[in-house]
Amino acid sequence: MRDLLPEEARKRRSLGRTILDHFGLHGYELVTPPAFELAEVLEKGLGALDPGDVLRFVEPESGEVCALRPDMTPQIARMVATRLAEEPLPLRLAYEGTVLRRRQGRAKKHRQIPQAGVELYGAPNPEGDLEALRLLASVARATGLRGFVIDVGHAQIARSLVACLPSSLADDVTAGLVQKDNAALEALFVSSRAHNVNAKIATALVEIVGLSGGGAERPGDEVLEKGRSLLAGTPAESPLQELTSLWSTALLPRQTQAGGPNDSLEGVLRLDLGEVRGFAYYTGAIFHVLAPGASEPVGAGGRYDDLLGRFGVPMSAVGFGLNLDMISRAREALGVHETKPLRVVVMDDVRGEALTQILRARTIAACRLGPGQDVLRYAAAHHFTHAVSNTSGDDGQIHVVCLDDPALSRRFSKDVDMEQLVSAIIQPNAR
Amino acid sequence: MRDLLPEEARKRRSLGRTILDHFGLHGYELVTPPAFELAEVLEKGLGALDPGDVLRFVEPESGEVCALRPDMTPQIARMVATRLAEEPLPLRLAYEGTVLRRRQGRAKKHRQIPQAGVELYGAPNPEGDLEALRLLASVARATGLRGFVIDVGHAQIARSLVACLPSSLADDVTAGLVQKDNAALEALFVSSRAHNVNAKIATALVEIVGLSGGGAERPGDEVLEKGRSLLAGTPAESPLQELTSLWSTALLPRQTQAGGPNDSLEGVLRLDLGEVRGFAYYTGAIFHVLAPGASEPVGAGGRYDDLLGRFGVPMSAVGFGLNLDMISRAREALGVHETKPLRVVVMDDVRGEALTQILRARTIAACRLGPGQDVLRYAAAHHFTHAVSNTSGDDGQIHVVCLDDPALSRRFSKDVDMEQLVSAIIQPNAR
Repeated sequence: MRDLLPEEARKRRSLGRTILDHFGLHGYELVTPPAFELAEVLEKGLGALDPGDVLRFVEPESGEVCALRPDMTPQIARMVATRLAEEPLPLRLAYEGTVLRRRQGRAKKHRQIPQAGVELYGAPNPEGDLEALRLLASVARATGLRGFVIDVGHAQIARSLVACLPSSLADDVTAGLVQKDNAALEALFVSSRAHNVNAKIATALVEIVGLSGGGAERPGDEVLEKGRSLLAGTPAESPLQELTSLWSTALLPRQTQAGGPNDSLEGVLRLDLGEVRGFAYYTGAIFHVLAPGASEPVGAGGRYDDLLGRFGVPMSAVGFGLNLDMISRAREALGVHETKPLRVVVMDDVRGEALTQILRARTIAACRLGPGQDVLRYAAAHHFTHAVSNTSGDDGQIHVVCLDDPALSRRFSKDVDMEQLVSAIIQPNAR
Repeated sequence: MRDLLPEEARKRRSLGRTILDHFGLHGYELVTPPAFELAEVLEKGLGALDPGDVLRFVEPESGEVCALRPDMTPQIARMVATRLAEEPLPLRLAYEGTVLRRRQGRAKKHRQIPQAGVELYGAPNPEGDLEALRLLASVARATGLRGFVIDVGHAQIARSLVACLPSSLADDVTAGLVQKDNAALEALFVSSRAHNVNAKIATALVEIVGLSGGGAERPGDEVLEKGRSLLAGTPAESPLQELTSLWSTALLPRQTQAGGPNDSLEGVLRLDLGEVRGFAYYTGAIFHVLAPGASEPVGAGGRYDDLLGRFGVPMSAVGFGLNLDMISRAREALGVHETKPLRVVVMDDVRGEALTQILRARTIAACRLGPGQDVLRYAAAHHFTHAVSNTSGDDGQIHVVCLDDPALSRRFSKDVDMEQLVSAIIQPNAR
């Protein structure tokens, strides 16, 4: 659990605005579920919750078991099923909030992850998956990310193969898939020959792990080709067909217009047939966005056509969530900086009240500082871009200091017009 | 715990933006504490937490008792004491988040309250209290509120009187003060004559309950005058002097400039000497903002000069929090409506992709709808302002429907220029 101090909190909020504004531009409407949820609602989406993974408490009056959500999708599914089921489809919803996950590794403390995401209900495929993928690409670009990759897999490829294994083997094989550890998988199948595992299934589970690509090095078509021969005759054949159709539609040339193809998937998509990460509720395509500088995916999502049915309202659905912490890290690694908003501190002895009011009327942040303080130290500590003060001399001159670039600082006689002071802040180059 | 569906969620978010932007304009920097906090941190500010009032849980790994915060001030005090104590003062911080309170009355379920507020640390008085009060008035105006009143009291007036009572009586008297029930208070003192309660203290506690005013009916000076004679010789004399000095400074004529006195307190302030509501940590002035249409205060705050000392860094502080739910209700009662953002749904058969992209490039929300659907029903259900479709006839005309005002709808031939369609949406009156 971490505090966000001023500069970081401002950047985080600004990033959240950029993302939600982008979702809004694409017709997605904001909804806000409560910060905690009945445990049974979360379990409908996530399966049995490990008590060590999810923070729960009993609401004292009702006796209901509640939990701090590790994911917002089940809550929004509950909201749609109970309150929006009668609306004409498709339904486009956006959300922002924090989720709580247990950190992996040795120190398994919980951590709060700031998320923003979308859910698209009742959109047929492949249009539904495509809309989600394109929005994922365009919102990543809107936050300033470059060089990111969207890994696309299908939840049923590995799952349908694992379902053919004896239950004694299933957990270990899944763990091997999660670790992408072919050697461990091979060893498992060698040691388990007694189990009579179908050789085709075993080979498929070992070899899909390396089956990824989509760029210049290893074209997607080659990955799909290999997949087809590897999975022919297994239950994973049909999910692979779905993925193939999504892949080819996603890369069709499109009619594009003014503003450029911000949502183009060309050069961005990568196939990963062995992908198994993601929530239990996924039933179709699954995606992960990877960006340089971020140690974890900056976004993840997929299709979950069964979840709404568990709330009594069967409906297809696809969505994704972005991890704002990881996007911030990737932006920093790329050196993406937004324009710093103007913030001015005004010494009280320089007609401070009047100048402060004029600046605010022009939507420039301003506040006053009482006499006797070191205004430059104060301005630097509190992220002001400008300080307005008397100069140290006795001539009564007024000094407009630009903290980021001293060359843009200026001095004025004490009877200077207020407008000149304002101009020195807003248009420092116009003399 | 309540879901916010699209329209309500959008309005709530927009209100939060307005408020935080206003705080930013006044130099307050955003900080974001975690959504839950160590129970011991909250207890430093709020006193012993009633287990029935606060939702707590044990963090499984660390064994630490955490709680969902009923108030953000103690968290921010902790943040300042541990991470910002070396910064030059004053420190201006803003926050937004949800707090969790137990509903009063029969159904004592918890409810989530969306809050935004500020804290001003290390500002001397009366400037500090005044800055908080003026910001309170100006932010209330910025949200569109009119006719609101800021009740000002002092935490030590009633508290210092109650401290003179035998402990057997203190709780009942405090309850009477909270209820503003003179009759009950009088009865308590009559029945407790045996306790040897000082008659002056008893009279003061009964009579401060009605001692409020500040408008034309009952001028503030009259309230203060009565207070002075009522409290003379009691320990409440000195807090009353502080309040008197704040009152007179707040209503001094000021140098005002362009933009007008948005932060004027004239006609807004009201004294309430018997006010006792508010958190245990308040030590000085306390304020409550009341607005027509809101069943509870839309904002509340006060001075808390002892809290930071409990974290080892003594520092004066004053702040307030706004209840966004109550502000929304007051705005609705006043009929305050913001401009609805343009949202356009485009039938896929009308060069939909191209038009959608052009609209988005102009920052107008747009999305497409597949063929065969009732576009007007869809548009109305999902809060679109415009729908672009083929007319029902076979002439291939394109119809731009304005949902809020059918008189602004227009028809075009099927080979219309895209720009004309865009103009019909952006500038419907310019033919």
